[in-house]
Amino acid sequence: MYYIGVDVGGQTIKAGVVNDQGQPVGELSIVPTESERGNDHFLSQLCEAVRDAAATAHIDLKQIKAIGVATPGLMDIPNGIMTHPVNMPTLRDVPVREYVQKFFNIPTTFQNDANAAAYGEFWAGAGRGTKSLVLFTLGTGIGCGIIWDHKIIEGEHSHGAEVGHIIIQAWGGRMCGCGHAGHLEAYASETALRKIMTEHLTQPHTHASPLHTLSVTDGLSARTLFRAVEMGDADANRIVQDAAFALAVGATCMMHTIDPEIVLFGGGMSVAAGPSFLNRIRNGIQTIAFPIPAQNTRIEYASLAEKAGYIGAAGWARHLFG
Amino acid sequence: MYYIGVDVGGQTIKAGVVNDQGQPVGELSIVPTESERGNDHFLSQLCEAVRDAAATAHIDLKQIKAIGVATPGLMDIPNGIMTHPVNMPTLRDVPVREYVQKFFNIPTTFQNDANAAAYGEFWAGAGRGTKSLVLFTLGTGIGCGIIWDHKIIEGEHSHGAEVGHIIIQAWGGRMCGCGHAGHLEAYASETALRKIMTEHLTQPHTHASPLHTLSVTDGLSARTLFRAVEMGDADANRIVQDAAFALAVGATCMMHTIDPEIVLFGGGMSVAAGPSFLNRIRNGIQTIAFPIPAQNTRIEYASLAEKAGYIGAAGWARHLFG
Repeated sequence: MYYIGVDVGGQTIKAGVVNDQGQPVGELSIVPTESERGNDHFLSQLCEAVRDAAATAHIDLKQIKAIGVATPGLMDIPNGIMTHPVNMPTLRDVPVREYVQKFFNIPTTFQNDANAAAYGEFWAGAGRGTKSLVLFTLGTGIGCGIIWDHKIIEGEHSHGAEVGHIIIQAWGGRMCGCGHAGHLEAYASETALRKIMTEHLTQPHTHASPLHTLSVTDGLSARTLFRAVEMGDADANRIVQDAAFALAVGATCMMHTIDPEIVLFGGGMSVAAGPSFLNRIRNGIQTIAFPIPAQNTRIEYASLAEKAGYIGAAGWARHLFG
Repeated sequence: MYYIGVDVGGQTIKAGVVNDQGQPVGELSIVPTESERGNDHFLSQLCEAVRDAAATAHIDLKQIKAIGVATPGLMDIPNGIMTHPVNMPTLRDVPVREYVQKFFNIPTTFQNDANAAAYGEFWAGAGRGTKSLVLFTLGTGIGCGIIWDHKIIEGEHSHGAEVGHIIIQAWGGRMCGCGHAGHLEAYASETALRKIMTEHLTQPHTHASPLHTLSVTDGLSARTLFRAVEMGDADANRIVQDAAFALAVGATCMMHTIDPEIVLFGGGMSVAAGPSFLNRIRNGIQTIAFPIPAQNTRIEYASLAEKAGYIGAAGWARHLFG
């Protein structure tokens, strides 16, 4: 049998067919989200993405056992509703699961996008074969998903695995984009790095450095920062080291809470960062985690990249209806 | 049917019979641990406690469906071994579960004591009827147990729910008794409070205050600190407020990770602290947690006091063999 996974983002809806092993069948279908046109239009775009995914894969919808939809923002997971997607403010209380299920008459599941990505890595990616996993997705923010006992910890109020918003600096912490202080995301997301770079570059005593030059020519981005490190920029190195340490703190919190078999880091920023950044995180963990989890927990990069979300959404549909 | 729960401490082994509803039957049996006499003697004390519990409750061992043992320190939960109980250094690699099971020929389970206490509150205490729970046990250290999906999150390396040792102050944090910096336990355990009180009282500018007077007459303890607050001591108030904030940070980390139905605080220090301390923690959570978990997560004191451990150990035995 086959499953369709749908990964809703602010700009595009990605949908794809996967088989029972979590492997993509055919090409990924990409449809514009167009959330500014409201709930009804968004729901029809969603269904269009599902239909298109099946067509592109040359799979009849009758061969689809279940559909899994993953979305960002505030949600009511048990009831399948996007309540308040922060980056799509024109959408409100969208009954995603019920609509899709009725439209196609195919069992449909609903999940948080970061949770789905974690399930994707668990089912068919870098966490394959493990019993439990924590995935940090590093991008504009820090998404997280926790798999334990083969299930997603979605939380009693759909706030499970919001680990980007655990407090790692309770007193005097940096402000997070969410309005609270001291969150992991305020230290190690791409947004945070851009903010920290800006603070550094606008200090009066800053002299021309690789970071300074690159930020002018290439713009402020994680990629610029990591390139400056490669060019021997000491300040860039310190900024990256602090971010890696913050992620080591976040990983250690999970290792002293969930104590998973594997901790993964994924997302666009991890690609820009390259393997040396993972080693910085690993070294940080070795200095701060308890010896037994430090020695035994695998710390790796994720492997499914931008496919993790839709593969995981499909996998979760298979978990519940397969 | 009946179950026997055993809660091993550094000084005493507590054992008791409970029924299928988690209610104690008969009196608690208390046997000295005498860990300094080594593994073999300790194991015979353990069996003595089990036998005594049954006798005290006038229950024949034939009516005991399963025995649950809970112990502190480093352990290998799946294999039922106390590997390295930190506060009983003369014990090493004690095969608790296998020994007790063979001795009585009754199915036996093994669990971490803080996990067992959480399961006790979940099964028969303040968390009864919930689906998921986090318990912080405030004492010399901070113990923690997490129940999710009706199970204990014991972790892949027996390090689940070591939430006393999550990092809440990544940079410039206070030293924890475990040797690492910035842990929750370094801010809100009784040991931490004693240390912070000492630092305060030995400052040269400290003048005679209720805290100062009480610490001389009654000694340095959490009880002294909370009494000084009642007497209007501003410094004691600030120390208590910081500890409550640290616990709010710890609770919020769990609310943004596990997102449980209820967070409980128990242990000797919570008794000394009284209801106003719980309200300080609640107020802290309201200011730092996300609105939906802040509004919907119940924050309460635990209700089973020192019985939570053995009742939970018995409950876990019932969960696996009942």
